Amino acid sequence: MNAPDKFAQLLSLTREPFPASRKIYVPGQIHAGIRVPMREVALSNGESATLYDTSGPYTDPTADINVRRGLEAMRTPWIDARGDTEIYTGRAAQAVDDGVRRAGQPQASTAPPGGGEVREATSVGENSRREDRTDPSDPEVQRIAALRAQAAGLQRTPRRAKAGANVSQMHYARRGIITPEMEYIALRENSKREWMAEYLSDAERNQRLRGNPMGAQLPEFVTPEFVRDEVARGRAIIPANINHPEVEPMVIGRNFLVKINANIGNSAVTSSIEEEVEKLVWAIRWGADNVMDLSTGKNIHTTRDWIIRNSPVPIGTVPIYQALEKVGGVAEDLSWEIYRDTLIEQAEQGVDYFTIHAGVRLPFIPMTAKRRTGIVSRGGSILAKWCMSHHKENFLYTHFEDICEIMKAYDVSFSLGDGLRPGSGADANDEAQFAELRTLGELTKIAWKHDVQTMIEGPGHVPMHMIQANMEEQLKHCHEAPFYTLGPLTIDIAPGYDHISSAIGAAMIGWYGTAMLCYVTPKEHLGLPDRNDVKQGIIAYKIAAHAADVAKGHPTSRARDEALSKARFEFRWHDQFNLSLDPDTAREFHDETLPKEVSKVAHFCSMCGPKFCSMKISQEVREFAARQGLDEAAALAQGMQAKSAEFRDGGSEIYIPIQKL
Amino acid sequence: MNAPDKFAQLLSLTREPFPASRKIYVPGQIHAGIRVPMREVALSNGESATLYDTSGPYTDPTADINVRRGLEAMRTPWIDARGDTEIYTGRAAQAVDDGVRRAGQPQASTAPPGGGEVREATSVGENSRREDRTDPSDPEVQRIAALRAQAAGLQRTPRRAKAGANVSQMHYARRGIITPEMEYIALRENSKREWMAEYLSDAERNQRLRGNPMGAQLPEFVTPEFVRDEVARGRAIIPANINHPEVEPMVIGRNFLVKINANIGNSAVTSSIEEEVEKLVWAIRWGADNVMDLSTGKNIHTTRDWIIRNSPVPIGTVPIYQALEKVGGVAEDLSWEIYRDTLIEQAEQGVDYFTIHAGVRLPFIPMTAKRRTGIVSRGGSILAKWCMSHHKENFLYTHFEDICEIMKAYDVSFSLGDGLRPGSGADANDEAQFAELRTLGELTKIAWKHDVQTMIEGPGHVPMHMIQANMEEQLKHCHEAPFYTLGPLTIDIAPGYDHISSAIGAAMIGWYGTAMLCYVTPKEHLGLPDRNDVKQGIIAYKIAAHAADVAKGHPTSRARDEALSKARFEFRWHDQFNLSLDPDTAREFHDETLPKEVSKVAHFCSMCGPKFCSMKISQEVREFAARQGLDEAAALAQGMQAKSAEFRDGGSEIYIPIQKL
Repeated sequence: MNAPDKFAQLLSLTREPFPASRKIYVPGQIHAGIRVPMREVALSNGESATLYDTSGPYTDPTADINVRRGLEAMRTPWIDARGDTEIYTGRAAQAVDDGVRRAGQPQASTAPPGGGEVREATSVGENSRREDRTDPSDPEVQRIAALRAQAAGLQRTPRRAKAGANVSQMHYARRGIITPEMEYIALRENSKREWMAEYLSDAERNQRLRGNPMGAQLPEFVTPEFVRDEVARGRAIIPANINHPEVEPMVIGRNFLVKINANIGNSAVTSSIEEEVEKLVWAIRWGADNVMDLSTGKNIHTTRDWIIRNSPVPIGTVPIYQALEKVGGVAEDLSWEIYRDTLIEQAEQGVDYFTIHAGVRLPFIPMTAKRRTGIVSRGGSILAKWCMSHHKENFLYTHFEDICEIMKAYDVSFSLGDGLRPGSGADANDEAQFAELRTLGELTKIAWKHDVQTMIEGPGHVPMHMIQANMEEQLKHCHEAPFYTLGPLTIDIAPGYDHISSAIGAAMIGWYGTAMLCYVTPKEHLGLPDRNDVKQGIIAYKIAAHAADVAKGHPTSRARDEALSKARFEFRWHDQFNLSLDPDTAREFHDETLPKEVSKVAHFCSMCGPKFCSMKISQEVREFAARQGLDEAAALAQGMQAKSAEFRDGGSEIYIPIQKL
Repeated sequence: MNAPDKFAQLLSLTREPFPASRKIYVPGQIHAGIRVPMREVALSNGESATLYDTSGPYTDPTADINVRRGLEAMRTPWIDARGDTEIYTGRAAQAVDDGVRRAGQPQASTAPPGGGEVREATSVGENSRREDRTDPSDPEVQRIAALRAQAAGLQRTPRRAKAGANVSQMHYARRGIITPEMEYIALRENSKREWMAEYLSDAERNQRLRGNPMGAQLPEFVTPEFVRDEVARGRAIIPANINHPEVEPMVIGRNFLVKINANIGNSAVTSSIEEEVEKLVWAIRWGADNVMDLSTGKNIHTTRDWIIRNSPVPIGTVPIYQALEKVGGVAEDLSWEIYRDTLIEQAEQGVDYFTIHAGVRLPFIPMTAKRRTGIVSRGGSILAKWCMSHHKENFLYTHFEDICEIMKAYDVSFSLGDGLRPGSGADANDEAQFAELRTLGELTKIAWKHDVQTMIEGPGHVPMHMIQANMEEQLKHCHEAPFYTLGPLTIDIAPGYDHISSAIGAAMIGWYGTAMLCYVTPKEHLGLPDRNDVKQGIIAYKIAAHAADVAKGHPTSRARDEALSKARFEFRWHDQFNLSLDPDTAREFHDETLPKEVSKVAHFCSMCGPKFCSMKISQEVREFAARQGLDEAAALAQGMQAKSAEFRDGGSEIYIPIQKL
């Protein structure tokens, strides 16, 4: 590698393993070649815990990472072995793919993701176009050219289904085939159970803490067959384009762990392609299960190459964004042909799921006229504009079966977009929103007819008491296809803190049955999230997803809570940090008050100070309980009588003399 | 004032009014002398909004603030007029009140608030005692001596009920008296309704968005009689000690707006008395409805004088903390006499409510022996220790009626403490917790027999699916006395972010019926919150409380959401900021991307950029809807036919040429 290497420099920030953690790989049984990565945390008391790990090879010090080469194509042997695909000469690259203007066309939009709203508004963008640079002596021109050349080298020759074949995981599942992806997912969802026995063996606690799955059917242990069956039923999807062999398979479904999505996206002004890859690595480090690349403007194709080739998590896109670029930002000029070309372009690159706003039907558009905040989805606005201009039905709706043909040739999953989602609590659960939702249900049936995997996008802005109706309507009209919601934000008055206002709604709807939660960052509605905003959004959503998992009753989730609580109670500070969602911040906050290393092994905390110890009192409680017994104590409750203060004789001072520590 | 004046310097930070805001005062009708402060926000479109305002006179530029004199004693004429109190020579100050050691005693604890847990652990503390300074030439000794002398000047001569009288608001309410406090509260809860008409007049929206009060009985309009009735029933309390005439009356009850509490507390090492007052002013600026002073250690009495005399919000304390200081930190040496002396000391100072852990009964202590995290409440630990040492019932329980006699002589409210609350999800809703809760219900009946106002404290750490049971049990066993919960935290693995993990639980339990939410800061479990942590905790809890209010159906809450949403949709950026919970942060985040003033009035946002405008599209939708009508559009849905593209003729480009802006 050439020095100084910007990538190496950037990636050095996020390649280090989490503290006290090592990557372990759990082998498959049906499919021997499978190696499922997990993070094993070594605890200071000799125990360990194994955690679900989204960070990919980046946190494995033994992995040979080279972003110019891309990640290892782990799934290629699996795909090859199925014998139903062919390698072919893909669509020829076009200048317009990267936003280069065609003669006579209006200037292409460089509007970054987002129509002023949420899911499509949380990635980095720009506000004004830079001059198109063409001077070959310009270092920036040289840099972009070099990146493109390298990306062209990164791009794999595409693969597609052989004529008549269908390569979707749903298609295999429905034929009774347990793919390596399915076994991989089963192992991943289960985590290792050995260390959890201590936390999950108490009968009283199991009864008292048993989850309320709200209709979900969670197995005690996920088998590969269970994964197959859920995918076959359409209740879960495995986003895994055959042209994204680098992906570590994961599942999105109500009967599995709740997942989260983070949005990234390029901006010619405020970020570079390299930075987008770094943002990807950063996002998965903190727990993003999926990433949507919402890039627009220049270098959109090249950016996607870099992201997909270096991503161990599924990548989703909103293809209408790039299609709009190709027609110079004029929505009326969009056509099925241009859109179809974009779908194939992105499917060949390896995009795992497409947000497709096929439910924004012409007759629903007037239903938004009386709204407080109109249409706030960028995709929804573009399609509404097209429909109104032509006075025609949405071409994504009329060409839906054509789209299915493309999806099943690459195993791209549908994420049926909610272009009419509410942009304020005032518009929640209105006629337009639910009319679109019902249409998404109709489209789901069509997709399933083609064995195309499908999930359904949901809102948005919804007050707490109206959230459950969203889940119920979705289950009812969309036939249990996985729900994928943005938040929802429960109030409107918290700009600057909408990661919190939406984490409340996300936790609730996750509990009610939503399979994946699209994050919201603190910059929502206000500006472009930076690196720290991305992390804040992800952590808030890991909290929401974990809260939902605990409420539903996932045993692995409760075990992690209990392991951390035990460490907390026993003043094992390092273990408390290392089992938390963000060990760095936990440690830093602790060190602000008690920086010395000795304080991390001392039996006190900054709240109590060295002379007061709740743990010691609790030990005394245990001795007291053992000596007195519950029955006698209960008897005492009736008629109190003074007893000999034998307990006091034990030198039971509440403050431990400091010299004893 | 002497310059440089540290107070003036500190307070200058937080005395400025919120942007575009002015303090208005709404007059009473029954009680003409009443002036209820509200914050009126002037909007850029000529409209205005009136918001509930906790910030007190500090944000009124016309108020003459002098922290050495204290706030105006607004309520004194009201109290005088009742003619049932007498001014008397209070309890003589003792050196031990401020933590000065008695000869032969162990060193007093300087443990700051918190038993390693939550409510009692969120204020500033210290970990090691400074040397007791006595050298009169030491500037620090001089400073403290001066503060004490000034505080002694601040302290009002105490007032108490005349012999046989009961001065509690509940007592008046039960005799049918509408006090000025009650009318004040009615006006405050209603806010001004004129500006809300626009947001609350649409029948479809009112029907669709109607709240789900979960059994609460919210009036459309709060009358003084309604306040009286709720207080008489015990469903609401008005914390307002007759020795805290500076308080701006507020109500805590399920049928009113959800309130929040912030904790502060001194630490001889890390903060000064002046800083505590500044922290109070900072906390109420961001919306704390109540503040608990959890000071311990040195200067505890003096600190409280400064805080109460300068506080427009009710102040709560945990008297056992100071009592423990008086016995040198040895829990076994606590006695009813020392505790009683402390109650009187604090009641004379003007504390509005006492957390009293009278439900930590001896027979319940063994029930905690098998817990994952034992007893985590500091107060609970202290009393468990006392009970075990003496093998006697908790003296707060056995002397409960004696305590009632003190409470009703000053109108101090009970906050019956949950000393056995769970410290982890694993311990949620267990036998110990609910045994204590039932006891608090018994004690509530005793308190009500004395017409003493009472609220009930609740957990703590509770997974989402177990939260509602807490509310149901509390309603069932505590006879609808207001519930006051700490969070609850929904998961255990988020140290560093527990303001978020707990805001989720707080929003839910607030919706279910909790009347006041005790905040949690990001430093929970880890360290001592600084000024920014206090703000972060408060904003997270304002979000939770507002989300609960919206879900319950408070019209004023929805109106604020709608006003901000309208401003957002119309690109009135300044209005969006100024109607938000934290205008400073919203503006700052926006300015990071688009700093120029012109961009705040431009019709675009950083997500869309100047060439794409969702508002313009929505305007087109309205025109489209008007032209086509819903019926025709619906007919179109059946059989699509190409129509003339008349709409297109309107020059309906999706991107507005930048020169038009």
